[in-house]
Amino acid sequence: MHTKIKNLIPLKKSLGPKGWIEDKSTIEPYLEEERGLYKGKAKLLLKPENTKEVSNILKLCNKHNIKIVPQGGRTGLCGGTVPSNNGEEIILSLERMNKIREFNKTNFTITVEAGCILSNIQNITNEKHFLFPLSLASEGSCTIGGNLSTNAGGINVLRYGMARDLVLGIEVVLANGKIWNNLMSLRKDNRGYDLKQLFIGSEGTLGIITSAVLKLFPMPKYIESALFAIPSPDAAIELLGLARSASADLLNAYELVSRIGMEMVLKHIPGAKEPMKNKYQWYVLIEFSSSNNSLRKQMEELFELALNKNIVLDGAIAESSQQRKDLWVLRDGLNEAQKPEGASIKHDISIPINNVSKFINIASTCVEKYIPNSRVVAFGHIGDGNIHFNISQPVNIDKKEFLDKWENINKLVFDIVKDLNGSFSAEHGIGKLKRKELKIYNPKIEVNLMKSIKLTFDPKNILNPGKVL
Amino acid sequence: MHTKIKNLIPLKKSLGPKGWIEDKSTIEPYLEEERGLYKGKAKLLLKPENTKEVSNILKLCNKHNIKIVPQGGRTGLCGGTVPSNNGEEIILSLERMNKIREFNKTNFTITVEAGCILSNIQNITNEKHFLFPLSLASEGSCTIGGNLSTNAGGINVLRYGMARDLVLGIEVVLANGKIWNNLMSLRKDNRGYDLKQLFIGSEGTLGIITSAVLKLFPMPKYIESALFAIPSPDAAIELLGLARSASADLLNAYELVSRIGMEMVLKHIPGAKEPMKNKYQWYVLIEFSSSNNSLRKQMEELFELALNKNIVLDGAIAESSQQRKDLWVLRDGLNEAQKPEGASIKHDISIPINNVSKFINIASTCVEKYIPNSRVVAFGHIGDGNIHFNISQPVNIDKKEFLDKWENINKLVFDIVKDLNGSFSAEHGIGKLKRKELKIYNPKIEVNLMKSIKLTFDPKNILNPGKVL
Repeated sequence: MHTKIKNLIPLKKSLGPKGWIEDKSTIEPYLEEERGLYKGKAKLLLKPENTKEVSNILKLCNKHNIKIVPQGGRTGLCGGTVPSNNGEEIILSLERMNKIREFNKTNFTITVEAGCILSNIQNITNEKHFLFPLSLASEGSCTIGGNLSTNAGGINVLRYGMARDLVLGIEVVLANGKIWNNLMSLRKDNRGYDLKQLFIGSEGTLGIITSAVLKLFPMPKYIESALFAIPSPDAAIELLGLARSASADLLNAYELVSRIGMEMVLKHIPGAKEPMKNKYQWYVLIEFSSSNNSLRKQMEELFELALNKNIVLDGAIAESSQQRKDLWVLRDGLNEAQKPEGASIKHDISIPINNVSKFINIASTCVEKYIPNSRVVAFGHIGDGNIHFNISQPVNIDKKEFLDKWENINKLVFDIVKDLNGSFSAEHGIGKLKRKELKIYNPKIEVNLMKSIKLTFDPKNILNPGKVL
Repeated sequence: MHTKIKNLIPLKKSLGPKGWIEDKSTIEPYLEEERGLYKGKAKLLLKPENTKEVSNILKLCNKHNIKIVPQGGRTGLCGGTVPSNNGEEIILSLERMNKIREFNKTNFTITVEAGCILSNIQNITNEKHFLFPLSLASEGSCTIGGNLSTNAGGINVLRYGMARDLVLGIEVVLANGKIWNNLMSLRKDNRGYDLKQLFIGSEGTLGIITSAVLKLFPMPKYIESALFAIPSPDAAIELLGLARSASADLLNAYELVSRIGMEMVLKHIPGAKEPMKNKYQWYVLIEFSSSNNSLRKQMEELFELALNKNIVLDGAIAESSQQRKDLWVLRDGLNEAQKPEGASIKHDISIPINNVSKFINIASTCVEKYIPNSRVVAFGHIGDGNIHFNISQPVNIDKKEFLDKWENINKLVFDIVKDLNGSFSAEHGIGKLKRKELKIYNPKIEVNLMKSIKLTFDPKNILNPGKVL
């Protein structure tokens, strides 16, 4: 054990064997991310059971200048939860802090601890006929603490906003170990600066979120799902405006799927079915939800209107919950279906909606020119201007040869994103992976402001060092 | 002119006579707020025409330690725009920066300068069949810069959120005069800390917002308004849950009106009409909006359901836009109608929704005990847990005698608010008026964090000194 870390030994007894872990094999899975891009070292894993224990840990760490990597479900994609290679950092997992502190149906709120798994929160609220709308691929293992510290997005952002928008209050342990209890459950609170916003999305670099009050919504009684075939991404954008206006504003999902992506899903994902008689180059998956049963009519009217305007070519409206699932397989299977197709270089970018189709056209052309026969799979949350712009390797080349172009491809794509006033990180965050990009593409004045805030909140840089900034 | 202020003379020529004002009578209206609670002194009023001019002003002010009071439409209620009495501060009005920089219908955004009047923004967007939902009593003269710097609320928060929730990007001039251009128009952008959140709601103490990208929404085609008579504020809370669930989630207004308030409106506001045959102690004004014509049915079903549960006693559903206006007069007239009734001590508080009726009961009882025959007028945005808890003086006592109890009444009310986990400032902010309360009721750790941020962003304390902190 590193000399500095020995200073934590006074905590060993109170944390107990479940909270103080030195065993190598137990620590092993905490050293890398799912995707395997980064792996670090650590000799001590702490799993506090409550906020007071987190506070005690941070007090000692701050005193002795011991660096901390906070962890939730470790489902991030940017290396934000991976320790460095020097082995001097300790890992602080919030996973044992997984209690629901309060469910308040009158206030439409739930108060949860940071280690609660997202799908558990969804299930508990669903059982009580409420909706907690945060929903993403890793919901079965990600934790709400991780969701908040990364300001997670997902499939319902269009209607309900990002993780940030779903929070009324938080409890945070600051770098010096002090606890800031801001577990307010108010819709309106203008008592000075809105400090919680700084902790949300700062990836554990300014404080450790230990609990949160989340907004709940009524569960919609009806949901209408449809897949529309469209001539181009341009048409997707025009249709989006029509769909928003026609429903004012009941659209809760609006996802782009391309033919090339669908082919991969049909080939590799069990149960995936060709959705229409004919094949088309582009599709959008649309959902309306509410508690009135006129949604079907609204969806049909939208289809007719768009057909007349030639921005929709064909469509399939789900007639049952099974048919709805079938449509979603074509969208949800896209990431998985790319894996058997070889290496893939991925980008999680966002663009002003009016520039999205321009982006897809320009970036696809440039990528295909730079790597002939590469296969652009552009898909996802086009309703938010958020495109997962993934490039699968050409079928006939070596994986390594393709991956060697990673940096160049990133630069090519991100430069176009920048030109079109977009963001190189829409929902995945910065972590280790995009620190360089942060410095290149964010204005310097912005990076300097972030640095000055970091210095104010964590002067010894003990919280998740080497991440974000 | 104060010696320090003379350092600004190099700007006189470039700002021109419209931008550089020393004339006493022209400056006069800029020295106090509508409500007349505060009045200050100032010998120089600057009205820059563009962001560069704001930047030049701040650079010189920062260099020479000249304090600045930024102003929008001066409709605030907490003295946030009033200069101090020492006459050494300059006033910086953003009113000439009132251009619409871009209207982007595809992206559902509008980019406006800080000095744009809120109702102008509403009108421009309405003409193009979009909705900018921020709406409040002073919309005819308040500016969007003021709305953002105070995180304004209003009547549509329930559905569309506070001013904070309606912003995608901002342009800010920092204390040192540097311009931070964050005019992004993205729905998702996770590139590091969300700095814009600090400037929104900080009342001009951290930077001066000069422009913003605002979110637009489709204009709902249908709106259904109703006034329901209810037995108690408790029933209002139960009905709120029913209304949210029944419509999932189309409720865009949910406002409490009391009999005593309605009596004042009926007496003093021209055109106000008794809404039902019988008189009741409490009412809620409910609105659903969307683009489907089944809203009327949903409203009727809600009424039937609530009637059967005995939480609604009677109701009036608007049959025309005139009838809708008639219902709103009963709500909107409440502030005005209190004026002829003598002095009034007002509170803009918020409470977790489950505690709202408890608050109204306890606080009313305590106030009436403390000042016998005082008249509690509790009304407003109960759907957000935001109550305007106003106390009109007893009819038979001296105005001054009543107003002398201001501090004591505040303490009485705010202590109850604190006990029920509420906020002493829901939407009006802090300004000068509630600085003392900020220090009493916000946790010390929170106030210290705010102070450290202020010091980081404005080390010389030139921006709106003596406000908020």
